[in-house]
Amino acid sequence: MNGAESLIRTLTGGGVDVCFMNPGTSEIHFVAALDSVPQMRGVPCLFEGVAAGAADGYARMSGKPASTLFHLGPGLSNALANLHNACRAEVPLVNIVGDHATYHRRYDAPLTADIEALARPYSKWLRSAASAGDVGRDCAEAIAAARTAPGRIATLILPADTAWSEGGQVVPVAATPAPPLPQTATIERAATLLRNGMRTAILLGPHLIEGEALATAGRIAAASGATLLAPFNLTRMTRGAGLPVVERVAYVVDQALEQLRGFGQLILVGAPAPVAFFAYPSKPGLLMPERCDIHTLSRPGEDGAGALAALAEVLQAQTTQPVLQRAARPALPEGDITIAGLAATVGALLPERAIVVDESITSGRGMMAATKGAPPHDWLVNTGGSIGIGLPMAVGAAVACPDRPVLCLEADGSGMYTLQALWTAARESLNITTIIFANRAYAILKGELAALGANPGRRALDMLEIGRPDLDWVALANGMGVRARRVATLGDFADALRRGLAGGEPNVIEVPL
Amino acid sequence: MNGAESLIRTLTGGGVDVCFMNPGTSEIHFVAALDSVPQMRGVPCLFEGVAAGAADGYARMSGKPASTLFHLGPGLSNALANLHNACRAEVPLVNIVGDHATYHRRYDAPLTADIEALARPYSKWLRSAASAGDVGRDCAEAIAAARTAPGRIATLILPADTAWSEGGQVVPVAATPAPPLPQTATIERAATLLRNGMRTAILLGPHLIEGEALATAGRIAAASGATLLAPFNLTRMTRGAGLPVVERVAYVVDQALEQLRGFGQLILVGAPAPVAFFAYPSKPGLLMPERCDIHTLSRPGEDGAGALAALAEVLQAQTTQPVLQRAARPALPEGDITIAGLAATVGALLPERAIVVDESITSGRGMMAATKGAPPHDWLVNTGGSIGIGLPMAVGAAVACPDRPVLCLEADGSGMYTLQALWTAARESLNITTIIFANRAYAILKGELAALGANPGRRALDMLEIGRPDLDWVALANGMGVRARRVATLGDFADALRRGLAGGEPNVIEVPL
Repeated sequence: MNGAESLIRTLTGGGVDVCFMNPGTSEIHFVAALDSVPQMRGVPCLFEGVAAGAADGYARMSGKPASTLFHLGPGLSNALANLHNACRAEVPLVNIVGDHATYHRRYDAPLTADIEALARPYSKWLRSAASAGDVGRDCAEAIAAARTAPGRIATLILPADTAWSEGGQVVPVAATPAPPLPQTATIERAATLLRNGMRTAILLGPHLIEGEALATAGRIAAASGATLLAPFNLTRMTRGAGLPVVERVAYVVDQALEQLRGFGQLILVGAPAPVAFFAYPSKPGLLMPERCDIHTLSRPGEDGAGALAALAEVLQAQTTQPVLQRAARPALPEGDITIAGLAATVGALLPERAIVVDESITSGRGMMAATKGAPPHDWLVNTGGSIGIGLPMAVGAAVACPDRPVLCLEADGSGMYTLQALWTAARESLNITTIIFANRAYAILKGELAALGANPGRRALDMLEIGRPDLDWVALANGMGVRARRVATLGDFADALRRGLAGGEPNVIEVPL
Repeated sequence: MNGAESLIRTLTGGGVDVCFMNPGTSEIHFVAALDSVPQMRGVPCLFEGVAAGAADGYARMSGKPASTLFHLGPGLSNALANLHNACRAEVPLVNIVGDHATYHRRYDAPLTADIEALARPYSKWLRSAASAGDVGRDCAEAIAAARTAPGRIATLILPADTAWSEGGQVVPVAATPAPPLPQTATIERAATLLRNGMRTAILLGPHLIEGEALATAGRIAAASGATLLAPFNLTRMTRGAGLPVVERVAYVVDQALEQLRGFGQLILVGAPAPVAFFAYPSKPGLLMPERCDIHTLSRPGEDGAGALAALAEVLQAQTTQPVLQRAARPALPEGDITIAGLAATVGALLPERAIVVDESITSGRGMMAATKGAPPHDWLVNTGGSIGIGLPMAVGAAVACPDRPVLCLEADGSGMYTLQALWTAARESLNITTIIFANRAYAILKGELAALGANPGRRALDMLEIGRPDLDWVALANGMGVRARRVATLGDFADALRRGLAGGEPNVIEVPL
């Protein structure tokens, strides 16, 4: 067995059975080995940023790592922006990066690059395989590293000769050690704070706004009167009718300050204290009031779900009924397209178990409010501020959950970063409905001008306009084999949304704003 | 004056008057300052890879640096693949990368990244501005570094508060020191080799296959009987009727070995010895015969043009008439589309002073032969093997040379990497005719399979197909405001090419293969 086959067999043996890929010459033996291992699903992507974002979305929804396959330093470079987001999302991910044959590096051929230097900023585990015989062991270690709580990026560099040479060995992946519980004193301190009568918020980090952790947090909130918060850049939030209520911290600094103003105490569970996305002259960076006590119940890498369970036990809240969101949908609006009308329409029609991928930036700010009482669903957002995650993340979520509809809320500016994802959605017949909010501008930047004290003239504003020529998303989607429709009224939009979500195949709805 | 305005004034004062940009919140003050400095032309790009590739093309054709503007670590990351190519092209380039305000970094806000680590692999000069008062000086040093021979990438990180704070100072750029001539003995050794009667090749590096250097090399070749070679990954070649003949080293290892087999001596002028792009089992990495003597006349950073002039003097070849390519065009073919027919059509119709940007990979391999006797033109190719440079480089070349037609030969797989460049071409009304060779596959990889000894089955081959669904480049181009046409015969193609080249505006010709 050659190194490449041992790699794929080690991946699938370790539960990593999807590979989002854009291979080149150095990765051909990995590709060729796919035929020997039918358990591995290769998903071709036309750009590496699509593959990285898809792997992130896959991990958020499946809870386990996907692999990626990239072509040397430049292929990895194209993935870095979405690896930045994945790093912030704290998801598990195994990158395989092909490299020149070990003995070819000395020639400094055109594609030679310092792959390790490029990988290091976002890789918690990083190694270049030395020989075909090492590849299986290296891969098993990479998977174990990726799975280490809270979820890490591991990067294995695969020189071409370690892929094509014989001597590969399939290596089982070691069991991941359970993440440590915080100390008892830390848990008891949180309980003490929750009993002292001060207004308290509990900020839930990645992987805690879903499943059992969310249910436990809901019981704690009900027993103590605390408010549950999610970071603005949340990894995944399970929400809707019948689920505990969690408020997302606002993006706009003044709004976030207002939202957090009344809290005297903040308990962090696997999340950092909320900070401003950017600095603005004469505005604070930390979003909590100055007199707020901050207590860290658990850090990333500790067992946040276990810490919440232990805290509930101390509070004798194990059977407390959480405050649950009641079912409520907006009425279906009619008439001209407005931001509020679009949000109400989504709120009225969002199907149960939908996965909402939200990179709508300015145009979608009303969406969460309008959908809070919709049937239970998941909400995924951009965690690292690197735009161009939405369309790829929808691909990954749809691959992870083929029986659930994916609704992607995408801004036109962000969507253009990684529009190639639409082709993969078509290739794989993924159940994704994408709404493009076509305001023909980097609208968020226009909104930031005042907050930043900048006073731009016509030439400057021109750099923030992405119209002239207008992008035609119907043509772009059709060009990649995805059917698409431009809507002119809210009635049109509702019809397109209903059909799109029911159709079971990729489709795009362009909404001119 | 704030730091941002001092930066732009220092750039334009130093001759850097184009900025290919994709700004975000941290770069708003740079954008706002554009209104104060009308000498600076901002060119908006919908993806940073477009901006980097455009800056490369601009530098290749203008001989001077453009600037870029990127949004923190992720914005820079998206540019890295084309910075890899620019680094290999040895072009001057000044990156400006916005960062959080200096005092905001400690909050580790979502977009925080180690920008210096990301920039280092491709930046020969790298600094983060410490204050508004330093920005002008830093920028002047960056420009001087970029202009240092043979052409370097300089990256200046601009924290938001150094842009918005007052105290900016415009700093003049120091004159670039002349690159050193090689030692006399080195030049005389080259002359001795050229007189010893052995078959000799002279390999010309970046910036030497154009202008006076090319003319001098032609005289040396005529006087000595040497053959002039260009690397496969050449930066720019001025060629055509009436210009010295330079052979490009082949990509395919066996072809290159055959091409170079008879040479007993190789003189390198600012170029490394030719090596295989990739390693293949049981094929050599170095493409020269084992018994070939290699002599380095000049290294990158030395004065290659001066070395050639000095060598011509030693050889008393200053007035020798070079062997010049005679004018000859293929007859315009008719009938079904074939690779050879497409090449002949381009050869028949290529206008004088055209700039050909060639990222046609497998489909364009006959193009150089068919155009060798066409009227004088320039040929630019992918220098680093990171695909997705073609469409962006055409944008940069067209911005640099608004009075010349640009013909972009683009493979469909590579084109999809940075298709957003078409929008910038439309926005700026650039004179670019793009031919998309739509073979619906990563055809080069299929070609590599045999050479690599891989034996893929259906599932593997499927990863190399980019049809199903087929990409519709007419729709994609139209979606970005570029008119486009799909052609069915060679007659159609000739008609579309003639109209496209004469039209003076961006247009796309899709050629199904």
